[in-house]
Amino acid sequence: MSDDTLLERRQRLLGAGAPLFYDRPLHLVRGEGSKVWDSHGRVYLDAYNNVPHVGHCHPHVVDALTDQAGRLNLSTRYLDERILDYGEALTATFADALSRVSLTCSGTEASELALRIARACTGNDGVIVTDFCYHGNSAVVAGLCTAFEMPEGVDPRVRTIRVPEADDDADEAAAEVEAAIASMAEAGMRPAAIFFDTIFATEGIPEVPTGYVERVVALTREAGGLYIADEVQPGLGRTGAGMWGHQLYDAVPDLVTLGKPLGNGHPLAGVVARPDLIDGFASRAMYFNTFGGNPVSCAVGHAVLEVIEEEGLMENARRVGERLHEGLAALGNKHAMIGAPRGRGFFTGVPFLSSEDGETPAPALAKAAVNGMRERGVLISRTGRHDHVLKIRPPMPFSAEDADQLLAALDETLDSLA
Amino acid sequence: MSDDTLLERRQRLLGAGAPLFYDRPLHLVRGEGSKVWDSHGRVYLDAYNNVPHVGHCHPHVVDALTDQAGRLNLSTRYLDERILDYGEALTATFADALSRVSLTCSGTEASELALRIARACTGNDGVIVTDFCYHGNSAVVAGLCTAFEMPEGVDPRVRTIRVPEADDDADEAAAEVEAAIASMAEAGMRPAAIFFDTIFATEGIPEVPTGYVERVVALTREAGGLYIADEVQPGLGRTGAGMWGHQLYDAVPDLVTLGKPLGNGHPLAGVVARPDLIDGFASRAMYFNTFGGNPVSCAVGHAVLEVIEEEGLMENARRVGERLHEGLAALGNKHAMIGAPRGRGFFTGVPFLSSEDGETPAPALAKAAVNGMRERGVLISRTGRHDHVLKIRPPMPFSAEDADQLLAALDETLDSLA
Repeated sequence: MSDDTLLERRQRLLGAGAPLFYDRPLHLVRGEGSKVWDSHGRVYLDAYNNVPHVGHCHPHVVDALTDQAGRLNLSTRYLDERILDYGEALTATFADALSRVSLTCSGTEASELALRIARACTGNDGVIVTDFCYHGNSAVVAGLCTAFEMPEGVDPRVRTIRVPEADDDADEAAAEVEAAIASMAEAGMRPAAIFFDTIFATEGIPEVPTGYVERVVALTREAGGLYIADEVQPGLGRTGAGMWGHQLYDAVPDLVTLGKPLGNGHPLAGVVARPDLIDGFASRAMYFNTFGGNPVSCAVGHAVLEVIEEEGLMENARRVGERLHEGLAALGNKHAMIGAPRGRGFFTGVPFLSSEDGETPAPALAKAAVNGMRERGVLISRTGRHDHVLKIRPPMPFSAEDADQLLAALDETLDSLA
Repeated sequence: MSDDTLLERRQRLLGAGAPLFYDRPLHLVRGEGSKVWDSHGRVYLDAYNNVPHVGHCHPHVVDALTDQAGRLNLSTRYLDERILDYGEALTATFADALSRVSLTCSGTEASELALRIARACTGNDGVIVTDFCYHGNSAVVAGLCTAFEMPEGVDPRVRTIRVPEADDDADEAAAEVEAAIASMAEAGMRPAAIFFDTIFATEGIPEVPTGYVERVVALTREAGGLYIADEVQPGLGRTGAGMWGHQLYDAVPDLVTLGKPLGNGHPLAGVVARPDLIDGFASRAMYFNTFGGNPVSCAVGHAVLEVIEEEGLMENARRVGERLHEGLAALGNKHAMIGAPRGRGFFTGVPFLSSEDGETPAPALAKAAVNGMRERGVLISRTGRHDHVLKIRPPMPFSAEDADQLLAALDETLDSLA
């Protein structure tokens, strides 16, 4: 079937508004490791998809899925060892205080649950978010969204702080939290939580000043709010510096939301939290998630953790991530249109800047680069407030050879755009 | 590992508040068709679980899951035939007007999406729900919940109507919708939607008066609201009378929410809707669901539809459901503590009533019956405002022999409780 026919059928079934990558969408049919193949047999290096975290169709994960799906798949209202084996292995990667877990199907459900817990347990309503954030697609979570316009608008209980860059004044940035809390007080509210992605992915992966995160968390806690760390994007070893993005800073969250990579594509997500918060919420609400924590999802999640460990994927993200950063920095010296790389490990950003002043964001160039890379067989995307930051976020087994292939394709693409 | 050790590990990991069935919880390790086995090798007839819709671990579904998980699992931002094949087969089971689909991971996400669409497209805020309902576990959806107490309380934009029984006055019952709309008008609101489970499962499976549903839908539409049919419980042929519960009435919904049984345990759910609503929402909101509609979920959902068709499971629900109803009616004549069976097909309720007046709900007896059935190797549960209605909701391949086994076990249990 031709791609045009597929597109026509798709628009009839899903509507023309269902988001697609690329002006000429890609029809992928197979994946393995860091590679995907389209319907014409062409191979692409995947430097974008973080959902197939341990590599497309990893056989150990597929085996675990198949094995448990053939045994039993029921809700957590029956006793089962799978959720215990997985949950214990998962919480072992967090600080001791974070010993409880509640599994869900998606990052949105994790955001919902963390917010419901924070509001119920603090008795407060306010939420502090960052100035270009996205945490999911439910109504309340859309009400936190400052990155895209939503029909609901930003919730009146929400206050926004600007995420500073490394050379911004940390005092000034932290003062925004004080202003947010004061503004809540004027409206008769207190903060239930501060909620942010610990690598600030949607914000464009800025490097925040040292001590900034610790200060905004301390200020929120002084006002009675909790710290919710969104690990949907930086989690599971992607930074190469630790299993979780929040471990880059010296502050242990009260609640952590997990999503996308957790099940290597299988719908698995959840909240890891302090016991008193999980128990406090359970005493106030009948919360149950039908699919959350089912034995098949847990078998899959556990297999993902095992592959990360056995194949040394966190160390790979650190090592190959460094090679990538060095290569990108070298390309930055050669090509005026890109700035210094940001982020770390396998969450890397490359800003495109106007050649006139070397400062103004250049989203059209970034878009052309994404398309140019696709023509050269490499899948990437872009992010940030101005959509001018190339987002490099490959599956974790991305190798040194893969990194070199990406760098060569980017060099060529930048030449073609000059 | 002993069940006591599992329970201890579970409480440490999930907290003591995580819901479990039975005072002495059941540790299940294997399932096949309508049967499950516990860790001691004891077999149980499953007359309760609707998630393994076409039977526990159906090999055709497991094969589809395994096959696609080994090929590719990515988001719908790439073209893929699986979502088209599945979505077209799914929407073909609905009225022509309901031709668009948006897939999610859970019934909660489907409820969220349907409400966001209804509010965005009507420009109205109010929602009419039934007086003992549950539609999911997010904050906004918890705000619709009238069946359980939630820390958020019932949302001020929500109005509640009482669900009538067959011999109640239909005019009086419909007048509650008029009162709900008038009450909204007083608060400066109009209805965005009326939202109910088309078999009124949580309400206790009452048989509503003929014409009631059609009237409440018409009244809501006159006031500018949409009709959202929740098919999470009655859907996929369970009533034996049609693929969807709303087909029991002469009113086509504007939006339909799907959940639990859709993926036979795989986290798959969604909204089927009129094209103008899906498109209208897409033009107002950036909506994207990372796992929703991925090719593995779609392969699984499609396999479930195929099994329903190939094995004649809807006809089985009708035929065996009738046998079950007849048998239950006969038990009602023999045992004063149970009333006439309710519902249809494989969604059947049996009310437990006080032997003193034959009318007062008797939840303690219903609970004792659930435990007595478990001792006799049959899994069931209970529902309704007073928790006094035995809920019989087996996997769809439940056979005539299975029905007879259930009836014999219930007869014995009722004898033991008399």
